[in-house]
Amino acid sequence: MSEYEYNPPRGMRDIVSPEAELYEYLFSEFKYTATRHGFKPIITPTIEYFKLFEAKSGEEIKRSMYVFEDKAKRILALRPEVTASVIRTYLRLMRGYPKPIRLYYIAQCFRYEEPQYARYREFWQGGLEIIGDPDVNADLLVALTASDFLERIGLRHVYLVGNVAVYRSFMKKMNLGEEFQDHILHLIDKDQVDRALGELENVIGDEKTELFKELVSISDLDKVREFIDEYKVFLGDLYDKTLSEHERLSSFVNTLREIGYTAVYKPTLVRGLAYYTGLIFEYKVSGAETEPSIGGGGRYDGLTEVYNGPFEYSTGLALGLDRVVLALSRETGLSRGVKTVMILVHGNIPLSTAYSISKKIIENSGDEVEVFVYRARSISRGLEYGNKIGCDLVVLIGEREYTSRRIVVKDMKSGRQELVDIDDLVEYVSRSLR
Amino acid sequence: MSEYEYNPPRGMRDIVSPEAELYEYLFSEFKYTATRHGFKPIITPTIEYFKLFEAKSGEEIKRSMYVFEDKAKRILALRPEVTASVIRTYLRLMRGYPKPIRLYYIAQCFRYEEPQYARYREFWQGGLEIIGDPDVNADLLVALTASDFLERIGLRHVYLVGNVAVYRSFMKKMNLGEEFQDHILHLIDKDQVDRALGELENVIGDEKTELFKELVSISDLDKVREFIDEYKVFLGDLYDKTLSEHERLSSFVNTLREIGYTAVYKPTLVRGLAYYTGLIFEYKVSGAETEPSIGGGGRYDGLTEVYNGPFEYSTGLALGLDRVVLALSRETGLSRGVKTVMILVHGNIPLSTAYSISKKIIENSGDEVEVFVYRARSISRGLEYGNKIGCDLVVLIGEREYTSRRIVVKDMKSGRQELVDIDDLVEYVSRSLR
Repeated sequence: MSEYEYNPPRGMRDIVSPEAELYEYLFSEFKYTATRHGFKPIITPTIEYFKLFEAKSGEEIKRSMYVFEDKAKRILALRPEVTASVIRTYLRLMRGYPKPIRLYYIAQCFRYEEPQYARYREFWQGGLEIIGDPDVNADLLVALTASDFLERIGLRHVYLVGNVAVYRSFMKKMNLGEEFQDHILHLIDKDQVDRALGELENVIGDEKTELFKELVSISDLDKVREFIDEYKVFLGDLYDKTLSEHERLSSFVNTLREIGYTAVYKPTLVRGLAYYTGLIFEYKVSGAETEPSIGGGGRYDGLTEVYNGPFEYSTGLALGLDRVVLALSRETGLSRGVKTVMILVHGNIPLSTAYSISKKIIENSGDEVEVFVYRARSISRGLEYGNKIGCDLVVLIGEREYTSRRIVVKDMKSGRQELVDIDDLVEYVSRSLR
Repeated sequence: MSEYEYNPPRGMRDIVSPEAELYEYLFSEFKYTATRHGFKPIITPTIEYFKLFEAKSGEEIKRSMYVFEDKAKRILALRPEVTASVIRTYLRLMRGYPKPIRLYYIAQCFRYEEPQYARYREFWQGGLEIIGDPDVNADLLVALTASDFLERIGLRHVYLVGNVAVYRSFMKKMNLGEEFQDHILHLIDKDQVDRALGELENVIGDEKTELFKELVSISDLDKVREFIDEYKVFLGDLYDKTLSEHERLSSFVNTLREIGYTAVYKPTLVRGLAYYTGLIFEYKVSGAETEPSIGGGGRYDGLTEVYNGPFEYSTGLALGLDRVVLALSRETGLSRGVKTVMILVHGNIPLSTAYSISKKIIENSGDEVEVFVYRARSISRGLEYGNKIGCDLVVLIGEREYTSRRIVVKDMKSGRQELVDIDDLVEYVSRSLR
């Protein structure tokens, strides 16, 4: 292999320290926050049948999957997202569970497209899903749990909110097929509103297209309601559902605002995935609102039916953890403030002694203290290593120290050394680290 | 999709609660323990070039990989193990780092073979690697960190220890090619010692095969040393290296014993992966020594050279976390002892109130307390749900409670209800959960 060939496959990454520590920190905090809010973990396969995603994953995602045949000629895919697997697992194993069911996951997903800045072929998602709850509280619970996570890690954020139900109701009433609907919504999502309106005009004519032209321009929630009311007769049997989806949206936005969040209604927000049915939302980092969102979600009631299951309510979200890492490293840097203690062994003393000291220091110091044993060829080589990796304290144990039971502890930042009785060592080290 | 088709692809699993919680618990504890012992995370790609594993991953693993072409006809593979990726990443990004470098990972790996009990096509590995340290202390550091993890989760274990260096030295002196060496070691690993000896006999004849017959039967470390000394002349230039590998093994075993572990030398232990060069070891759950090991590792000095890099010392291990889950659920069951609080909202009160209470309870209770907000169609439906999912406490907030600022808290285990002033609520709940 040549130097060049040490690269991973295109679009894949080798994540090392300190970035890897930031990833692990986010994974831990996400799991912790989800658990504290009553979500249970679910671990679904990295490899799924391709047909699972074929059904309802949105135009873009379908074209850009890693698809391959196994030796038995089954067509498999690396998951492009996790919600389809969660719904499959729900239908297979969790139908009888008391509802609502709250689930969380952290999983890498795959897309096979040209890598761009902050878009990788393997990327990390942290997701929350609630199955079996029609109430807006379910939408709020996933949203606020994610907000709590973002706050814990120190990322201030705002909400963008939209509602695909209103678009879908009008398009349905004009007898537009579901695939065409998805296509139009996809264009709007990609900020190609004019092209979307143009394509609509070709199919439904000027007059009806005016309606959509108006709809994409109203950003006041009360005015949207008036608009829906204005078309009550036109919407007919879909009026009630359209209105109640709008009320969900208003209630979602109002509750977020009462709690103190900024929540902005954006009429052209529709999001890429074709399975959303109503309320949708995205997270933007405060002060970086023009950057891509760091995640989002929404209602996908009835996705179970796409897989021939019984109708079920569902809502959920996913955060793009790679983007969260980028935003966070911009805001707070990569460092996590860990203290490192090296037990430096030299000369012919039993390593078991060093390990028993290491164990005691780990047990008696805070979670942010790292302790390891190292036996160098010489003390100076050991100290040089400790210095290079940024050790805070070095505990030197050699034959003399072992015999006299008095241990040298060196503070690597100040350079100060002290001779500490072996019985006071653990206490001394934890005190020094505070 | 029919019911049958809700299954994931063959050999893949949907892991749900409570098993999923056990997995997440192990992931957290593994990361925590590795971090406390000075290991830094590394996250390598799930997809690698096939050729990365082609080089040196052992007979068995090569035949049983998920291999596929991407759209640009590159031959890719889903990683069957992580060490090759770690070495590739080391050569690409970490050559200049101060050594030794301590790394940990948790990653799912893939093998394409017939699923068996506790052997899945997608499986979870927790690994530790140290690059750049020739000292036995590096072997001890990875081993004892894993031991610390296993102890933290409550899994008592013993060590099996072997040494492939001795076999390799003798085979090398008999001019046996590396592939044949790997094949013989693979047979011994699979407990097919007689077949291995038979195949050796065909190639090197009776007399020389006697030597191996003796070697596989000596289980006393001092006797192994005598054996090596006896063949000093035969081993020639390899004598020093063979002896020092044996001394590493003895020192490893003795230190483990001094610390209090059971460590057994097993002459036929060689392990499947072809890249091991000396000391190797495995973990067995105490009392289940006849079951497959739950993980293991060893020295793989010079694996960097296989990838045309400069020689580097390295040692590491991986635990099979699926087997650890199985062993743990047998020992201690699946349950993790979490307390659940439901904030049950009914009637027309602002959800923001419920979320501000939820937030305060989360902030003021222990990590093992889960709190979520639920708005049910009726109180009785809400309590029924709380009962089914095993809630410990239900905090009822309705219009009356909201107005009177006196909240009903129901202990779901005893059935007792109490009326609590809203200002004392958080304190009352955390007290009740203790």
